[in-house]
Amino acid sequence: MNKIVLLTGFEPFNQEDINPSWEAVRALGDWHEGDFTVVARQLPCAFGVASKLLHQIVEEVQPSIVIMVGQAGGRVDMTVERVAINVDDAPIQDNRKRQLVDVPVVAGGPAAYFSTLPIKAIVHQLREAGLPASVSQTAGTFVCNHVFYSLMHQAADWGTTMRAGLIHVPYLPQQAARHPGSPSMRLADMIEALRIAVRTVLAYDVDLREAGGVTH
Amino acid sequence: MNKIVLLTGFEPFNQEDINPSWEAVRALGDWHEGDFTVVARQLPCAFGVASKLLHQIVEEVQPSIVIMVGQAGGRVDMTVERVAINVDDAPIQDNRKRQLVDVPVVAGGPAAYFSTLPIKAIVHQLREAGLPASVSQTAGTFVCNHVFYSLMHQAADWGTTMRAGLIHVPYLPQQAARHPGSPSMRLADMIEALRIAVRTVLAYDVDLREAGGVTH
Amino acid sequence: MNKIVLLTGFEPFNQEDINPSWEAVRALGDWHEGDFTVVARQLPCAFGVASKLLHQIVEEVQPSIVIMVGQAGGRVDMTVERVAINVDDAPIQDNRKRQLVDVPVVAGGPAAYFSTLPIKAIVHQLREAGLPASVSQTAGTFVCNHVFYSLMHQAADWGTTMRAGLIHVPYLPQQAARHPGSPSMRLADMIEALRIAVRTVLAYDVDLREAGGVTH
Amino acid sequence: MNKIVLLTGFEPFNQEDINPSWEAVRALGDWHEGDFTVVARQLPCAFGVASKLLHQIVEEVQPSIVIMVGQAGGRVDMTVERVAINVDDAPIQDNRKRQLVDVPVVAGGPAAYFSTLPIKAIVHQLREAGLPASVSQTAGTFVCNHVFYSLMHQAADWGTTMRAGLIHVPYLPQQAARHPGSPSMRLADMIEALRIAVRTVLAYDVDLREAGGVTH
Repeated sequence: MNKIVLLTGFEPFNQEDINPSWEAVRALGDWHEGDFTVVARQLPCAFGVASKLLHQIVEEVQPSIVIMVGQAGGRVDMTVERVAINVDDAPIQDNRKRQLVDVPVVAGGPAAYFSTLPIKAIVHQLREAGLPASVSQTAGTFVCNHVFYSLMHQAADWGTTMRAGLIHVPYLPQQAARHPGSPSMRLADMIEALRIAVRTVLAYDVDLREAGGVTH
Repeated sequence: MNKIVLLTGFEPFNQEDINPSWEAVRALGDWHEGDFTVVARQLPCAFGVASKLLHQIVEEVQPSIVIMVGQAGGRVDMTVERVAINVDDAPIQDNRKRQLVDVPVVAGGPAAYFSTLPIKAIVHQLREAGLPASVSQTAGTFVCNHVFYSLMHQAADWGTTMRAGLIHVPYLPQQAARHPGSPSMRLADMIEALRIAVRTVLAYDVDLREAGGVTH
Repeated sequence: MNKIVLLTGFEPFNQEDINPSWEAVRALGDWHEGDFTVVARQLPCAFGVASKLLHQIVEEVQPSIVIMVGQAGGRVDMTVERVAINVDDAPIQDNRKRQLVDVPVVAGGPAAYFSTLPIKAIVHQLREAGLPASVSQTAGTFVCNHVFYSLMHQAADWGTTMRAGLIHVPYLPQQAARHPGSPSMRLADMIEALRIAVRTVLAYDVDLREAGGVTH
Repeated sequence: MNKIVLLTGFEPFNQEDINPSWEAVRALGDWHEGDFTVVARQLPCAFGVASKLLHQIVEEVQPSIVIMVGQAGGRVDMTVERVAINVDDAPIQDNRKRQLVDVPVVAGGPAAYFSTLPIKAIVHQLREAGLPASVSQTAGTFVCNHVFYSLMHQAADWGTTMRAGLIHVPYLPQQAARHPGSPSMRLADMIEALRIAVRTVLAYDVDLREAGGVTH
């Protein structure tokens, strides 16, 4: 039986009319290769609602691997997140007009979970392929981090072998054209980068050990 | 009896001949006000060695509050760290010529600890005083994060009421003069900012709830 | 008879093995549409040599329009240069190992020349097409600015109706993959942007008047 | 008889309630040393009005040297401007609610004037003194550039030996405290930097030749 790789992207938020995370993810829906098939799903950009839906999807599709993808407007490259932290601290309202401040994602949960994806290997393979990428030490404190933490907590509860993590993507050129000064990346490159990420997760049970940290 | 507030700064690293964190901290050594006295100590910029020494100092001086201070060259303001993560991933060698990559700070420890300082209140009070400050979502993966995590882990072990956290400071102007393009802050402002931080920690048992997060 | 649009790009410099300016320009060689034909030529990245060759090319092909294109690693978008200044002040050696410092491009020449391309219209049309672009107030003081100034000076001498200017392009993704933290743009987008730039120059004898400046 | 060094700063603009350029300049009013005396004057942040007033001041006080100082919020250091260009292109309204777009500062004037201050020597001396500084290739297209160009044009008309130029200063810490993410510099450092700038202009009839340019 095929392994399921679940990719999730978000709906547009913060006055954008498009979210590159979903555009890239949906392009890979039903993509299959070797022994895996990709399932692509969209999440709402809303605290609680997004994580609940993600849990339902995970129970439904039983993925071996989950790569959550989110938009990080202002970043220059594909950023593979290292860690999810147990706090919602929103600088803006979510799509349900809620702005949570200093609330735990999961009351009583541990402070953080590390990604269980091979983050260094993904960055390594993306750069090898000529695609700009780096490890990120923070996924922020908004809905992306929220669903990331929430899923990792659920996975820890289950004691599952499911591996999961989050990748942030920059603005698309068409978005950056309306935000002068912002870097961007082509959708085709994001899609290719996610393909490589999926293959890399499947190929690496143990991560590469390559420096990817920062002094601060 | 007086409360002890322990402030630590680091020795110079990465080819600098000065470390503003130590310059600011040592200026506050023996400062006392109301019912507290400040003890200022320098830490080496070296994995393991720094955390071991910090543990010894803490056992010796029995502080109620610990504010670790570190240099974050390239940052624009006083950054009050939210979280310490359980990984050493050094982009450069430390002062003992060790470059740890993807090693836990404490094997088997939890993924992270949150600062137990009132980080929002500190940022709030610094800005009120006209000093640039912000919450930081990552303390990096070098020696600063290492000692921060290590101390929080020890504190959790002890079940102590000691509160602790990390504040990063920018370059001094004299350092930025040799790194064109880098922002900086005056030593006098850092010292004043640390004074305010100490008073704020003592004044706030519970943190303010003010947005200080980021979307990513 | 057809109008000639001359596009120039540069050879790689500063340890790169590719220069996106030339890759984009050469893709448009011999492109013709309506009453114009594009001539694409490469310039060496060397003071004096580049400007001399450009003068020869201009005498040879007799263009109505010249768009010089250069690489600006670190910039986020297509930057349409407003002005060329009469100084060479190189932070690095050129490809002939010369590092000119504070030498005029043309001894006795005026301090600067403005681009005679419709720079605001180009930026407007690029953004309309979903391509990130902005006006730049400085073309630097290296070989790009050198050839830009040199050609504008020659054009002023001739009293020609030829219109000319410079556009800087970001790194390609494959370059940014080796310079973590650097933004990039796809070659296909640069080529499309140059197509739009050419059509815009032909369509606008008088520039749009839209704010494109900065406070400093 | 004493040489007069005229320093000008601007009134607050763009919703600020303070302008560090004027705060620094006025602290040096009447400062005298050796054979010079400083005259400090404030300029309004308004196209036309500011340049007219500056011309009157110059006729009145007959300075040997003019250092115009302006605020450049977002810059990290003292930036010594190389060139003034003949265009007003305002991204925001000035203090008289005028937003000039693509209008020449002086109709029929040349495209630009270079600073006649020893800009490399000033940057060199500031860095030597531990004060962050750099050469800037653009003074923007707002009121600072406007008065800079206007005065250089007047000086060229007169054939005077008066030397003149513009230095931009960052935000003050108290301003940056309200603009999270913005770098800043202490007023005392700006004042000291301007002192050094004045002495350097007097000491250097010919500028140092040191690289201070950029590739783009």
